[in-house]
Amino acid sequence: MPSTDHGPADLPDPDEAADTGLLSPVRAGGAVERATADTAYLRAMLDAEAALAHAQADTGLAPAAAARTVATAAAEAAGTLDVRELALSARWGGNPVIPLVRALTAAVAGHDPAAAPYVHRGATSQDVLDTATMLVASRALGHVLADLDRAAGALARLAAAHRDTPMPGRTLTQHAVPTTFGLKAAGWRSLVLDARDRLAAVRDTLPAQLGGAGGTLAAFHAFAEGDAQPPRPDLGPALLAAYARRTGLAEPLLPWHTLRTPVADLAGALALTAGALGKIAADVLVLNRTEIGEVAEGSGGGSSAMPHKANPVRATLAAAAARQVPALAAILHGSLVAEDERPAGAWHAEWQPLREALRCTGGAAHAVAELTEELRTAPDRMARNLAATGGLVVSERLAAVLAGRIGREKAREVLDDVSRQVAREGADLATALASRDEAAAAFSPGELRDLTSPAHYTGSAAALVDRALARR
Amino acid sequence: MPSTDHGPADLPDPDEAADTGLLSPVRAGGAVERATADTAYLRAMLDAEAALAHAQADTGLAPAAAARTVATAAAEAAGTLDVRELALSARWGGNPVIPLVRALTAAVAGHDPAAAPYVHRGATSQDVLDTATMLVASRALGHVLADLDRAAGALARLAAAHRDTPMPGRTLTQHAVPTTFGLKAAGWRSLVLDARDRLAAVRDTLPAQLGGAGGTLAAFHAFAEGDAQPPRPDLGPALLAAYARRTGLAEPLLPWHTLRTPVADLAGALALTAGALGKIAADVLVLNRTEIGEVAEGSGGGSSAMPHKANPVRATLAAAAARQVPALAAILHGSLVAEDERPAGAWHAEWQPLREALRCTGGAAHAVAELTEELRTAPDRMARNLAATGGLVVSERLAAVLAGRIGREKAREVLDDVSRQVAREGADLATALASRDEAAAAFSPGELRDLTSPAHYTGSAAALVDRALARR
Amino acid sequence: MPSTDHGPADLPDPDEAADTGLLSPVRAGGAVERATADTAYLRAMLDAEAALAHAQADTGLAPAAAARTVATAAAEAAGTLDVRELALSARWGGNPVIPLVRALTAAVAGHDPAAAPYVHRGATSQDVLDTATMLVASRALGHVLADLDRAAGALARLAAAHRDTPMPGRTLTQHAVPTTFGLKAAGWRSLVLDARDRLAAVRDTLPAQLGGAGGTLAAFHAFAEGDAQPPRPDLGPALLAAYARRTGLAEPLLPWHTLRTPVADLAGALALTAGALGKIAADVLVLNRTEIGEVAEGSGGGSSAMPHKANPVRATLAAAAARQVPALAAILHGSLVAEDERPAGAWHAEWQPLREALRCTGGAAHAVAELTEELRTAPDRMARNLAATGGLVVSERLAAVLAGRIGREKAREVLDDVSRQVAREGADLATALASRDEAAAAFSPGELRDLTSPAHYTGSAAALVDRALARR
Amino acid sequence: MPSTDHGPADLPDPDEAADTGLLSPVRAGGAVERATADTAYLRAMLDAEAALAHAQADTGLAPAAAARTVATAAAEAAGTLDVRELALSARWGGNPVIPLVRALTAAVAGHDPAAAPYVHRGATSQDVLDTATMLVASRALGHVLADLDRAAGALARLAAAHRDTPMPGRTLTQHAVPTTFGLKAAGWRSLVLDARDRLAAVRDTLPAQLGGAGGTLAAFHAFAEGDAQPPRPDLGPALLAAYARRTGLAEPLLPWHTLRTPVADLAGALALTAGALGKIAADVLVLNRTEIGEVAEGSGGGSSAMPHKANPVRATLAAAAARQVPALAAILHGSLVAEDERPAGAWHAEWQPLREALRCTGGAAHAVAELTEELRTAPDRMARNLAATGGLVVSERLAAVLAGRIGREKAREVLDDVSRQVAREGADLATALASRDEAAAAFSPGELRDLTSPAHYTGSAAALVDRALARR
Repeated sequence: MPSTDHGPADLPDPDEAADTGLLSPVRAGGAVERATADTAYLRAMLDAEAALAHAQADTGLAPAAAARTVATAAAEAAGTLDVRELALSARWGGNPVIPLVRALTAAVAGHDPAAAPYVHRGATSQDVLDTATMLVASRALGHVLADLDRAAGALARLAAAHRDTPMPGRTLTQHAVPTTFGLKAAGWRSLVLDARDRLAAVRDTLPAQLGGAGGTLAAFHAFAEGDAQPPRPDLGPALLAAYARRTGLAEPLLPWHTLRTPVADLAGALALTAGALGKIAADVLVLNRTEIGEVAEGSGGGSSAMPHKANPVRATLAAAAARQVPALAAILHGSLVAEDERPAGAWHAEWQPLREALRCTGGAAHAVAELTEELRTAPDRMARNLAATGGLVVSERLAAVLAGRIGREKAREVLDDVSRQVAREGADLATALASRDEAAAAFSPGELRDLTSPAHYTGSAAALVDRALARR
Repeated sequence: MPSTDHGPADLPDPDEAADTGLLSPVRAGGAVERATADTAYLRAMLDAEAALAHAQADTGLAPAAAARTVATAAAEAAGTLDVRELALSARWGGNPVIPLVRALTAAVAGHDPAAAPYVHRGATSQDVLDTATMLVASRALGHVLADLDRAAGALARLAAAHRDTPMPGRTLTQHAVPTTFGLKAAGWRSLVLDARDRLAAVRDTLPAQLGGAGGTLAAFHAFAEGDAQPPRPDLGPALLAAYARRTGLAEPLLPWHTLRTPVADLAGALALTAGALGKIAADVLVLNRTEIGEVAEGSGGGSSAMPHKANPVRATLAAAAARQVPALAAILHGSLVAEDERPAGAWHAEWQPLREALRCTGGAAHAVAELTEELRTAPDRMARNLAATGGLVVSERLAAVLAGRIGREKAREVLDDVSRQVAREGADLATALASRDEAAAAFSPGELRDLTSPAHYTGSAAALVDRALARR
Repeated sequence: MPSTDHGPADLPDPDEAADTGLLSPVRAGGAVERATADTAYLRAMLDAEAALAHAQADTGLAPAAAARTVATAAAEAAGTLDVRELALSARWGGNPVIPLVRALTAAVAGHDPAAAPYVHRGATSQDVLDTATMLVASRALGHVLADLDRAAGALARLAAAHRDTPMPGRTLTQHAVPTTFGLKAAGWRSLVLDARDRLAAVRDTLPAQLGGAGGTLAAFHAFAEGDAQPPRPDLGPALLAAYARRTGLAEPLLPWHTLRTPVADLAGALALTAGALGKIAADVLVLNRTEIGEVAEGSGGGSSAMPHKANPVRATLAAAAARQVPALAAILHGSLVAEDERPAGAWHAEWQPLREALRCTGGAAHAVAELTEELRTAPDRMARNLAATGGLVVSERLAAVLAGRIGREKAREVLDDVSRQVAREGADLATALASRDEAAAAFSPGELRDLTSPAHYTGSAAALVDRALARR
Repeated sequence: MPSTDHGPADLPDPDEAADTGLLSPVRAGGAVERATADTAYLRAMLDAEAALAHAQADTGLAPAAAARTVATAAAEAAGTLDVRELALSARWGGNPVIPLVRALTAAVAGHDPAAAPYVHRGATSQDVLDTATMLVASRALGHVLADLDRAAGALARLAAAHRDTPMPGRTLTQHAVPTTFGLKAAGWRSLVLDARDRLAAVRDTLPAQLGGAGGTLAAFHAFAEGDAQPPRPDLGPALLAAYARRTGLAEPLLPWHTLRTPVADLAGALALTAGALGKIAADVLVLNRTEIGEVAEGSGGGSSAMPHKANPVRATLAAAAARQVPALAAILHGSLVAEDERPAGAWHAEWQPLREALRCTGGAAHAVAELTEELRTAPDRMARNLAATGGLVVSERLAAVLAGRIGREKAREVLDDVSRQVAREGADLATALASRDEAAAAFSPGELRDLTSPAHYTGSAAALVDRALARR
C-alpha cells in the first residue's frame, strides 16, 4: 500500500476522519457508545491477548512469568496505543490484530525479551478479534440491560397508575373500542421484558474464540512438541476451557470462526430489542400529535425554527434506531454464510454493522428509559378523544346488550339507524338512542348513559394489566 | 372497488395469477410448501374459528351445540372454499378473514341458523389470521425440524467416518494449515443443531391470538352482559386459556396484536437456520469446484447446455435460500414497529414475507438433508490438494519444533530460506529441509517426513470431533 | 430425487401448494399479478425460445421453416404446458428451463422432427430465463406506469383544486407552520413522476440475454462450423442484435449472466416507486386519523369487528408494500455479487424476490391510483386543526413583522410572553396580542387578525404548486 | 437531559467514543473516509449556512455585508468548532444543526452583532443538514468516480492484453466451456462503467435543500414583510435558485424534506456500485484460490498466523463492503416513507447509513482500483486448469462438428461413449476420439487436436471484448 494513502501530508489531523457521533444523536454521549468505541475494542483485544497468555501458562505451555509480563504490557498498551494508527495499518492485512500484535510484541520485549515470543502465540487474528467483539458486546449489553430495566420499572409504574384510565383503542388509525393507558403501558413493558430476557440469555452464552490458524489449535500441539512434551490429545479442550475462564466468556464447544451462531443470536436479539423500543416510540409519536395530545415527552425537543414547539425527540431517535437495526441484523445473518475455515468477506462484514447495531439499540434503550421515566400523560385528553365518535366506540357492546333485550334483528336495525344518525349529525349515541322507542323501553336513562360510556367498556383490560405486571 | 378488478372477463382462469413454485425450485414439491400454501392458511383460519367457538362454549359464552356446528362447518369449508375467491375479496377490507367469516357464517346457517351468530363472535380478523399463522408456522416447522434431524444424523455419520481424514484448512481462500473433513462435518452439524434447538424452542412458544377489536376482549364481556350474566372480571384470561388449549398453541400473557415478539422470534430463528444451511452449501460449493473436487453431490444437477456436467444443485438452491431469508427477516423485524392497537401496514407486511421465509428455509433444510445424506467425499483429492503447497501448510509446526531443537532465531532463518525455495521451485518441504545441514542434523529422515506430513498435523481436530458428536 | 417428493399420492391436488394471493391483498386481482404469474413466466420463456429460433434463422444458422415451427409450437405450449409440473421438475436441475426445453422439443418434434434440433439450440437455461424475466418485467411495468399516470393525473387535479387550501404543516408530529393541501398533493405528484421517470427509463433498457453455456456464444460458432460455414468472427454480435430485435428488448453490449446491472436497475427503481407510494400512504394514514380527519378514502375499508368503521385500506396496503420492497431490492442488489460465468445461488436468489417486488409495487401503484382518484378532502377540518394552537403556528411571521415595527428585542419579548399565555390559557394569539400595548400600538385590529391568520401565512406554497404542476 | 450524560467526569477523553476506522479497514485512510468525516459534515453545514446568507443577500433579504460576515465566520468555525461537542449537544433537539447555529451565531456576533440575526435566518435544521449531506455526497462521489476511472482504465488494459487468453468458463462452480480472461476483464469493466455512469448522473442532480419550517419558505416572506417590502409571490423560487447557485448544487423543483428521491437515487447507485465491485472481488477470490491460482493480488495480505501466506486482502475488503451496502440502501429506501412535512425518525435514520454506504463503496472502489492496477495473471495456470477435464469443455463443439460429418445420432453416440471414457479414465478427449473409427475417419489427427483444443473454442469472446472496449 503506497504510503501516500495515509502519509502525514494527507492526514495532518488524526481526527479528520473520525465519526464522533455527529450523525447519530441517538447514541452520542451514551454508555454504549463508549463501550463500543475503537478504544473499547482496543482494550478488549488486549484483554484477549492477556487471557491467551495466561491460558497457555495455565495449561503448561508458557511460563507464568511471561504471561504476567504480557498481561502487564497489554494493560499499559490499552492506554498508549493509537487506535487510528492501528486502523490505518489494518488495511495491509485486512484486520487490526496484525499491527496490534506487532506493537504489543515490541512493548512486551521492552519489559522482558524472553516474554515476547509468548505474545499471540498459537493464535490467529480472528481468535483475538472475535473474543474482543464478544467482550465488547457483553459489556455494552450490560448497559442496555440496565436501561431496559429502568424502562420496565417506569412502565410498571405507568401501567399500575393508569390501570383504569380509559383511552381510545385505535386500529388502522381509526378509533375502534376503548382500551386503557394501563394496558398500553403493560404491553410496552411486556415487550421490554421480552427484549431483556432474550438479550440476557444471549449475553450469558457469548463465547470466547480460540482455534488457531485453521481451527484445530494445532500450533499449540506444535509448541508442546517443540518443548518435548508427550502428546496431549486433549490439549485443545483444555486450552479452550482455560482461555474462556480467563476472558470471563463462555467456553465454546468448537472454535466458531465460521460457525457464527453467537453473532446471529446477537443480531436477532438486538433486532427484537430495537423493534420493541421502536413500537413504544411509534405509539408515543401518535399519542403526542398536536391533535391527539394524550402523552408528551417530559423534556427536550427544541426546534431550531419554531421556538415554541416541543418535539418528541427521544421517541424520534428511538424510532430512527428501529429503522436501522433490522437491516444491520440482516447483514449479520447474511454473514452466517461463511465459507471455509475463515471467509473472505463475510467475517469482515460483521464488524462495523454489529457495532452500529449495538450503538443504535443501546442509544434507543437509553432514550426510552428516559422517555418512560419522564412521560407526561393527559387523561383528560384521552377522555375527550374517546368521546370524539359520539359513543360509536361502544357500539359492539350496545349490539350485544340490546340483542339480549329486544332480539338480535331488531337490535341491529336500531343500532344501524342510530349510528348513521350519530355519524351524520355529530350527535352522541346516548341521546340518539334515548329518542328511539325500542331503546327507551328497554333501558332507563341511567342505564343508557352507562352503556354508552366508553370508560365503562374496557373489557378485561384491568385483569390483563394485573397479570402482565405479575411477570418479573 | 370496481368489479372489473376481478370480474370473470378479466380472469377467465383462476390459476392465471398463481405462484406454484416455478421461480422457487428450492421449495417446489416440498412438505413445507404444502404446509404454507393458501389452502393451508385457509384450513388454519378455519381451525381458529372452530377453536374460538369451542372456547366460548368452554367458558359459558356459547352453547356447546353451536360450537360443534361451527366446527363441523369449518372442517367442511376447508375443502370447499375457494382460496382465490377469498384472496380477491380480501382487497376490499384489507384481509382475507372478512370474506372468510361471511362464507363460514352462511355455511353454518345452512346447518343451523341458531349457530350462525356464534361464528367469529367477539373476535377481530387479526385474532384469526394471527392464530392461523402460528398454526401454519408450527406445522411447517415440524417438517423443517425433521429435515434438520435428518441432516444432523447424516453429518454425525460423516464426522465419525472422517474423524481423521485430513484436508486443507482454508482461510481467505488460501491453504492455511491442515484440518479434517470430520471436523468440518462436525462443525456443520453443530450449526444444524443450533438451528434445530432455536426453532424447536420458538415453536414451543408460538401463541394463540385473541383480543377482540381493541385487545381488551371487551366484546366477550358484552355478550355475557347481554346474556345477563354477572360481571366476570377474569373472563378474558379464562378465554385466552380455553382458546389456546383448543388451538394447541401456547397461551399468551397478553393479546399481542402489536406486541410482535412471536413473529420476531420466528424471524430470528429462521434467519439463523437459513444461514446455517447456507454455510454448509457454501462449503460444498467450494469443495466441489472442478479444481478442488473433494466432495460431490450424490445426484441431480443436469445442465441444459452441458450434458456431461453435474451441477451442485442442492447446494445452489440452499445458497439461494440463504441469500433471501435475512432480508425477509428484516421485514419481519421491522414490523415490530406497529403503532396503536392494530397497525396500518406493519401487520399486513408480515404475511407474505413470513410465508416466503418458511418456504425458503424449509426448502433449504430439505435440500441439505438430501445433500448430506448423499454426499460423496474424495479423501484422495483432499490428500492431493493438501500436498499442493509442498508442505508449507505445516510450516508453523516446523517452526515450533525446529526452535526447540536449534533455537528460535536459527529455526526461523532456516525455515524462511526453505519456504522461499519451496515456493520458488515447487519443491517439497521435506526434501528441501533434508538438504539443509541444520535440519539434517536435528532430525532423522523419518522424523522429517513425519514432521512435514500435513496428515500428521491436525492438532485437536479429533478431540473436537469427539466432543461435538457428544452433543445431542 | 425420490419420486415421493412429488408423487401423486403426496399431491392429489396440484393447487394444494399454490400462492394465489391470499396473503397479499395488495396485489390480488391486479394486472401486475397476472403479468407476473407462473403462467406469464411460462409464456415469456416460450417467447424467448421462439425468438431464439427466429434469430438463428435470421443469421443463417437455422432454416426459417424450422424457426416458424418452433415458434408455432411455443405459442401452443403456452396454453397447454402445466406450470406446476415444470416447477416440480425444476428441482432436479435447479431451474425450470430444463424441463421446459424437454417438453418443447417433444412438441416441436410432433410438428416436424426436423425442426426439433433447433429448439433452444446453442442457448443456456439462463439465456431463456433472463430474457423471460425481462419480458415479464417489461410487461408488468407497463401496468405500473399506467397506474402511476392515473395517480399523477388525480394528484394534479387535487393540487390545482387545493392550491390555496391551508392546512397545518406538521414536523416531528407537531404543528409547525401552515402549508396547503395543494402543496402536499403537488409533492406527492412530484414523487410519482420521479418514480414514473425512473421506471420508464429502466424499462427502455431492459436487455435480452444470450450468451450460451459460457457467455461466449461459442456453440453458435460450432453450429456454423458443423455446417461448414466459413469463420464468422462477428457472429456473436449479429446474433445478439437479431435476438434482441425478435424479443423486442434492448440489445446488450455483452451477455450479462453475471453482469447484473439490469436487475439492479430494476431493484432501485422499484424501491423508489414503492417508497414514493408509501410516502403518500403514510400521509393519508396520518391525515385520516379519527382526531385529524382531513382526508378519507372514498370507499372500501370494512372492518370485521366494527361495522361502522371505515378503514383506510388502500393506504394500509400500499404502506405494507412499501415495507417489503426495500428488503427485496436488497436481495437483488446482493445478487450483483455473482461469481464466475454463472453463479451458484446469486442468480437463483433473484427470481422470486424480483417477482414479489414487481407485485408489491404494482399492487401499491394500483391502490394509490384508486386512492388518489377517490380521495375525499375536508378543508373545514384542515381549518379547524390549523386553529388548534391558537395561532402559534404563525409566530415566526409575527416575530419578523413585529421586529420591523418595534425592534427585534422588544418583539421577541412580547411574543415570548404572549405565546406562553396562549399555551397556558388556550387563548388565541390575536386576542392575546391585542391586549398588549406594544402590539396594539403597532397594528390595527384588522392587521392583527390578518397577521395571526394561519390561512394567510402560506409563503411560496402557491408558486411552488404552480411550478410543480408545470412538470410533465 | 441530565448533564451527567456527557459531563467531563464521564468523558475525560473526547476520543473515547470515536470510530476512527478500526473496524472498517476497507475505508480506513481513504479519501472518502475523510470526505465523510464528522469534520467534513461540519464544514458542509457551515458552507450551507454561508450560502443561505449569501442567497438572502442575492435576493434582497439581507445586507451583502452581513452575508459576508456570516460566510467569514462560518469558514473560521469549520476549523475551530468541536464536532464532538456538537454531537453531544445534538441529542437535546435531535439534530446537530441546533447547537451549530447557536455557536455560529455567537461567532458572527463576535465579528459584528448586526450580522448575527442573519445566521440561519428563515431556515430549518433540515435545510442545512440536507444541503450539507448533498455537499458531502458530491465531494465523496468525486473520489469514488476517480477510483472507478482508475479501475476502468486498468481493466481496459487487462482486457486488451488478454483478449485471447483462454481460461475455463465456470458455471455453478463447474467448468463449462472455455472463455477468455479478456472477456472476463471486459465484463468487469462494463460493470464499473455502469456504476460510474449512474453515480455521475446522480451526482449531477444532487439538490440543495431550502424550505423553512414547513416547506413553504414562508419565513422569508415574513422577513420581506417585516422590511415593508411589497408582496413577492416568486420569492421562494428566487431564493431556491440563488441558494442552489451559492452551494453549487442543483436547484430543486420543490423543497424535498419528505420527497426523498435524491437520497433514494444515491442509495440505488451506491448499491449498484458496491455490487459491481463485489462481483469483481468475488471472481478474484475464486481465481486466486490455492488450487486455481489464475490471478493474484499484487501486494498486501500478510497473515498473522501464516507468514508464508498471501491473502487476497483487497478483494476480501471489497467483498465485505458489498455485503453491507445493499442493507444500508434498504434503510435509505425505507426512509422514503416519511410522513408529514418532516418525519419523526425516517429522516434521522438516513444520516449514518448514508455515510456508511459512501464509506463502504468508496473504500471498495479504492481497493478495486489498486487491485486491478496490480493484478497478476497466470495464463499458464489458466491453460493448465482448462485441460483439467481432458477436453470435455469443448464437447458441445465436437457434437456440432461431428454431427456435420457423421450425422447427429451417430455423433451423439460416439461422444457420449468417449466422454464417459474420459471421465472414467482421466484420458484426454483427442486421444480417446482418435481411437474411435468414426472419428478417425472423419478427422485428421491435426483436425482432432485443433477441434479438442479449448483454446480454439472461445466463440465470439474476442469480438465481444472489442465492442466492450469501444465503450467509453
